[in-house]
Amino acid sequence: MIGAGHSVFGTRRDVNIPELCWESMKPALEKANLEPRDIDFFVVGNLGIWSSELAVPSIMAEYADLAPKGSMRVEAACATGSAAVRVGYTAVKSGLADIVLVLGIEKMQESPNPSVIELIGRFGSYFWEFENFGLTFPGYYALHASAYMMKYGATEEDLGKVAVKNHFYGAKNPFAQFRKEIDVATVMKGPYVAWPLKLFDCSPITDGSACVILASEKKVKEMGIEEKIWILSQGVGTGTANLSKREEFTSLASARYAAEQAYKLAGIENPVKQLDGANVHDCFTIAEIMAYEDLGFCKRGEGYKLAREGQTYIGGRIPVNVDGGLKAKGHPIGATGVSMAVEAYKQLLRRADKGRQADIKNGRWLTHNVGGTGHYTYVTIYGLEKR
Amino acid sequence: MIGAGHSVFGTRRDVNIPELCWESMKPALEKANLEPRDIDFFVVGNLGIWSSELAVPSIMAEYADLAPKGSMRVEAACATGSAAVRVGYTAVKSGLADIVLVLGIEKMQESPNPSVIELIGRFGSYFWEFENFGLTFPGYYALHASAYMMKYGATEEDLGKVAVKNHFYGAKNPFAQFRKEIDVATVMKGPYVAWPLKLFDCSPITDGSACVILASEKKVKEMGIEEKIWILSQGVGTGTANLSKREEFTSLASARYAAEQAYKLAGIENPVKQLDGANVHDCFTIAEIMAYEDLGFCKRGEGYKLAREGQTYIGGRIPVNVDGGLKAKGHPIGATGVSMAVEAYKQLLRRADKGRQADIKNGRWLTHNVGGTGHYTYVTIYGLEKR
Repeated sequence: MIGAGHSVFGTRRDVNIPELCWESMKPALEKANLEPRDIDFFVVGNLGIWSSELAVPSIMAEYADLAPKGSMRVEAACATGSAAVRVGYTAVKSGLADIVLVLGIEKMQESPNPSVIELIGRFGSYFWEFENFGLTFPGYYALHASAYMMKYGATEEDLGKVAVKNHFYGAKNPFAQFRKEIDVATVMKGPYVAWPLKLFDCSPITDGSACVILASEKKVKEMGIEEKIWILSQGVGTGTANLSKREEFTSLASARYAAEQAYKLAGIENPVKQLDGANVHDCFTIAEIMAYEDLGFCKRGEGYKLAREGQTYIGGRIPVNVDGGLKAKGHPIGATGVSMAVEAYKQLLRRADKGRQADIKNGRWLTHNVGGTGHYTYVTIYGLEKR
Repeated sequence: MIGAGHSVFGTRRDVNIPELCWESMKPALEKANLEPRDIDFFVVGNLGIWSSELAVPSIMAEYADLAPKGSMRVEAACATGSAAVRVGYTAVKSGLADIVLVLGIEKMQESPNPSVIELIGRFGSYFWEFENFGLTFPGYYALHASAYMMKYGATEEDLGKVAVKNHFYGAKNPFAQFRKEIDVATVMKGPYVAWPLKLFDCSPITDGSACVILASEKKVKEMGIEEKIWILSQGVGTGTANLSKREEFTSLASARYAAEQAYKLAGIENPVKQLDGANVHDCFTIAEIMAYEDLGFCKRGEGYKLAREGQTYIGGRIPVNVDGGLKAKGHPIGATGVSMAVEAYKQLLRRADKGRQADIKNGRWLTHNVGGTGHYTYVTIYGLEKR
């Protein structure tokens, strides 16, 4: 990964889709010292169902002068950005392309009817659970949260502490949607969205884009690029469409499966000791706590203790979401996984903003990106050095 | 490619989405002598905007017992199926997966409002050409056809001959939507959709699925598989979103670019002499004629002569769309590119239906799959032998 760029996340009625894309593409190309014509292939992570404009790759081919280079759009619900990274990664690794641009973009605030919540709800099993039982995503994650709390004794305050941490770091991230610190009292005072999840347990609806540029080892040497990180491995798993087909509700099988693959391929046996930090998919606070466990940062049933004890702040057991996470940085669906890759790039190269740079000792960073409620999970491990 | 399967194309109100998928997955798995649990990764080509059910990969993960294996959905307008083949191909070629299942699926007949024509229209530039000028795809290709006819002297009858040929072969394909021969008079009597294109110049709205299974060379050896073909190369190009930004209207720049790459990587200098046949993207009859030229089957401006002289029937200069093409076989968007791959598999292994098996001398077959009006083009070359 030889370049990375990030737009400001938030409500972006000030820009249209191509302008929002370019906001992250421009700095990524500049970092890599490349022009659009140097790109061999580009891949766009985008759901796009909120917009009448469906063909972002060809729109950007025209706007950013990338034509006639090849492209496609990929989607894996909220893990879309990581799926785009995968397509870029395999394009380079297979030898089909030397330089690939990976763009994640979502402009959700302009969603027509049906509403954003309804559209996202379809990413479970629409015809069964959504239509028949009215489940939307706050409801799905509320099921996870209540099952988890009942089984392990976690409290609403424990969940709230995840939000407090992520707002703490979001406040230090100039690209974040919410740049304001909160405390547990703020979370507890919030209205219930779906018990036990309250307003501050939920990630927001966001417009934004993120971009990374991947290059082959040969090209990196030729170009003499110093500032780079490596994709060490990626694991990917798929879950059942219906939550009712799952064996348990306190963990995501697809996440455990993806993590196992990623760790094996990157040679990681003790993630807490071998990683310098992680970005995990905190679409809801309970999701971050389940991620701690699914990724092996602690034992099953002890994730809430990491939150309670503040062990995932910088200086704790393992820093998690020190860019604000989906909760405070925002969650423009197609961009989220790419934004995580941008954060891995910044952290490993020690270019994170003041007050949110983790201590880089091992030179390895993990990203965990979930689509739906584990319908898709992508776990990617980045490194300062090639394995 | 060690397995291939195809559903019946047409109006498929008799099946739901997972059933339609399984109709092509089952024979593909059987051909490859595999169970769903043997699949490492699967990729789904699907537009899906006609359905409320958005998450086909996780739906199939549950229905076909593919979970927890990783997956994603890809899209490149009408070239979606070939984009899915690309993702499967690079997953194997990069070493990230040994066995990949590639599924293309579309169920378009159940499209809600807005209509299919309106939704497809968005795959150009929605906000400019569609909203402002009302261009839908018959209109776009009518512009190509009228520009071509004016420049080169082709007639409406020449266009019609493409439809006649494709219906001739569609009648011999048990999976085709239209299994009835027509003559030029039938075409000429049809109502105009967008001058000079008449009803029989246009491909239909189709439900269908197609599936291929790709495996690494190592796995193929291990499994001792005899019946297989190889992906020799793939080229991919992107065009501008707006037709008004194109330099010309009688050829697709993205198709020429994709073909050039594919030929170079596969060592093809004289396609007519080195290929045994091709499937090209005949969404409209003019598109097939432009494809002849963009792929170098003849000189620029002479494509209509191949149609006029019947040179793309079996026994002519080069057999094209001898499965009925999009015109008669049908065009279930996400499935189309995968269906072309299935046809390459059948033709090269000499398993095509009676009366439509091409003479296999060189052991190479080409597929040309266009999204939009050249917004995306994928050209893939398959071979009986590894290059």
